[in-house]
This record gives sequence, C-alpha cells and structure tokens, in this order.
Amino acid sequence: MDKNVLKKISYGLYIVSSLKNGKFNGQIANSVFQVTAEPVLLIASINKSNLTHEYISSSKIFTISILSQKADFKFIGNFGFKSGRDVDKFSEVNFKILNSGAPVVIEKCSAWLECEVINSFDTPTHTLFLGKLVDSEIIDDSEPLTYDYYQKVIKGKTPPSATTYIK
Amino acid sequence: MDKNVLKKISYGLYIVSSLKNGKFNGQIANSVFQVTAEPVLLIASINKSNLTHEYISSSKIFTISILSQKADFKFIGNFGFKSGRDVDKFSEVNFKILNSGAPVVIEKCSAWLECEVINSFDTPTHTLFLGKLVDSEIIDDSEPLTYDYYQKVIKGKTPPSATTYIK
Repeated sequence: MDKNVLKKISYGLYIVSSLKNGKFNGQIANSVFQVTAEPVLLIASINKSNLTHEYISSSKIFTISILSQKADFKFIGNFGFKSGRDVDKFSEVNFKILNSGAPVVIEKCSAWLECEVINSFDTPTHTLFLGKLVDSEIIDDSEPLTYDYYQKVIKGKTPPSATTYIK
Repeated sequence: MDKNVLKKISYGLYIVSSLKNGKFNGQIANSVFQVTAEPVLLIASINKSNLTHEYISSSKIFTISILSQKADFKFIGNFGFKSGRDVDKFSEVNFKILNSGAPVVIEKCSAWLECEVINSFDTPTHTLFLGKLVDSEIIDDSEPLTYDYYQKVIKGKTPPSATTYIK
C-alpha cells in the first residue's frame, strides 16, 4: 500500500459557506462534486468539527464559490487556516447575500452555486451534504483553481482537518 | 441559474472495476474522491443502471485506476461508451488480478487503489460506494488525466449516464 497514490486524485478548491442565526461562515473544501445530472445534485464533504458543518446542519443551505487561479495563499488561508469561531472571515472579502439569506464569496472566484440540503451521509470524520442546486452564476472566465495548482504553483499546505491530509 | 457553472467543477478520470461470479467489468468514472484521512476512505459514485454497479454491490470490492494523460479517446471509449453486458472490456487491455480476485487496469494509468465497500449512500441515479483503502500502488509518474484535459485536449464527450452530463 502506497498512500502517495492519494495525491494523484484530482480536485478543485472551493469556499463552502453557510449561515446560522444571522452569522456567516465559510471554509475551504476540495471534496465537492456533482452526483446526479437530473435533478442537479451536488455533494460537499465537510469535517464534522468545523463551524461551517454546524451552520449547514442548522440552515440546510450551503453555497459553493469556485476559486479561480487569481486566488493567492493569503486569501485561501483566511478561509482554510482560520476558524469562524475566532474571526469573522467575511469582514475583508467581497461577498453577496442570496435570497435565502446565505452568503456567497464572489471575489477571486469564477462562479458560484447555491444548494438546499436534501440529505446527508455520515462518515467517521466528514458529513457528505447532498444538496439540490437552486441557483448559480458565472462570475468570469478565469481558470478554476485545482488542488494540484494550489500545491505546485501556490505551494499551499493542507490542514489536518482536510479529507486529503496525509500524515 | 446557469448550469454552465457545473463545468467549472474539477475532476479526474478513473476506471472503476469490480467482479462477479468470476467475470470482470470496469467503467469510466469522474466522481472519485477521498472522504476521510484516518482511516483512508474513498467514495466512488456509480450509476445504478451500470453493470459495474451490479458487480460492486455483489462483491463489495472496487478498484480505481487513475488514468494518465497517456490515455487516448479509443482507450477511454472502451470503458466509457460500451457496456460490459455486450463486450468483454478486459480482452484487450493490460490488467492484473489482486489477492481479492478483483481486476485492476494498469495500462495508461499512473496508479491504482483497491477498496472494500463498508457503506453505500443512495441518490436518485447514482450510488456513492464508501470504500476502505486496502491496497494501492504507483505505476509511474505520468500526469493524472483530468476531466478538463479530457474535454479540451482529447476533445472527449460525456455519456448521459455520467454524473456530469448536461442536457
């Protein structure tokens, strides 16, 4: 068994956001994917210990901002290496509030999606939230940021709470 | 709502294989990802109407071959646009049989993984098989084939049974 094999699985990088009691939070996630085409359903895999997990469980809504190659390590780090329990991650980024009340980051992202949770699946450390696509918008034609680009070009790191963390 | 947003989600491309009653089958999948780090668990999302779905449901084993950029449209098409009900997809490709009896394609792939199914999650068209990593191997250092590369460089198409099909 060679765990380096896991590094060859391809991902994008996303900011998954939600709300609870008028407060907003968001976090970096790489395990986001479409699961059925008709209706359009998506999965976002979120660590159970994260604040965003608590917010999605409460509001049953999550938004996905598709990070573009414009995103630098500082911008990503604000959402990936800090907790919304300590800081307001939305204080210094451009975002908008959708009709549902959910926030979505629109800076350094090429598109966004909004999903209503219709089911969730339990794994030892992460919940897979199954969401129905209710709204989406293209922001610009910038290239999506892949996890590979993040590691090789931005030289980014991976926190222990990520699905892809390797000891 | 703009469904073109869905094209900006990043994926790799994989051959997911399994067995039933001594027969082998495999298919192309893009929705493969690691879901927890400790233990290493992976998800493979497989269309319920596909033969590979029947095989995985029966054997509780699946293997993942990580396609590399060496793979051409003909090679991918053998696994992506044919059904194992009509042809033996393994008749003309290099593969090996693991200790479990499961087949894994090792041609035009940079690595492979073998998983034992420990749970499965139901969605309208696809089952998410949750597998525990039991074996894996790096084949070579060729670049993993991304869905983006498949579409833009190989000019590949997407069948209606795929998670990412857009009408």
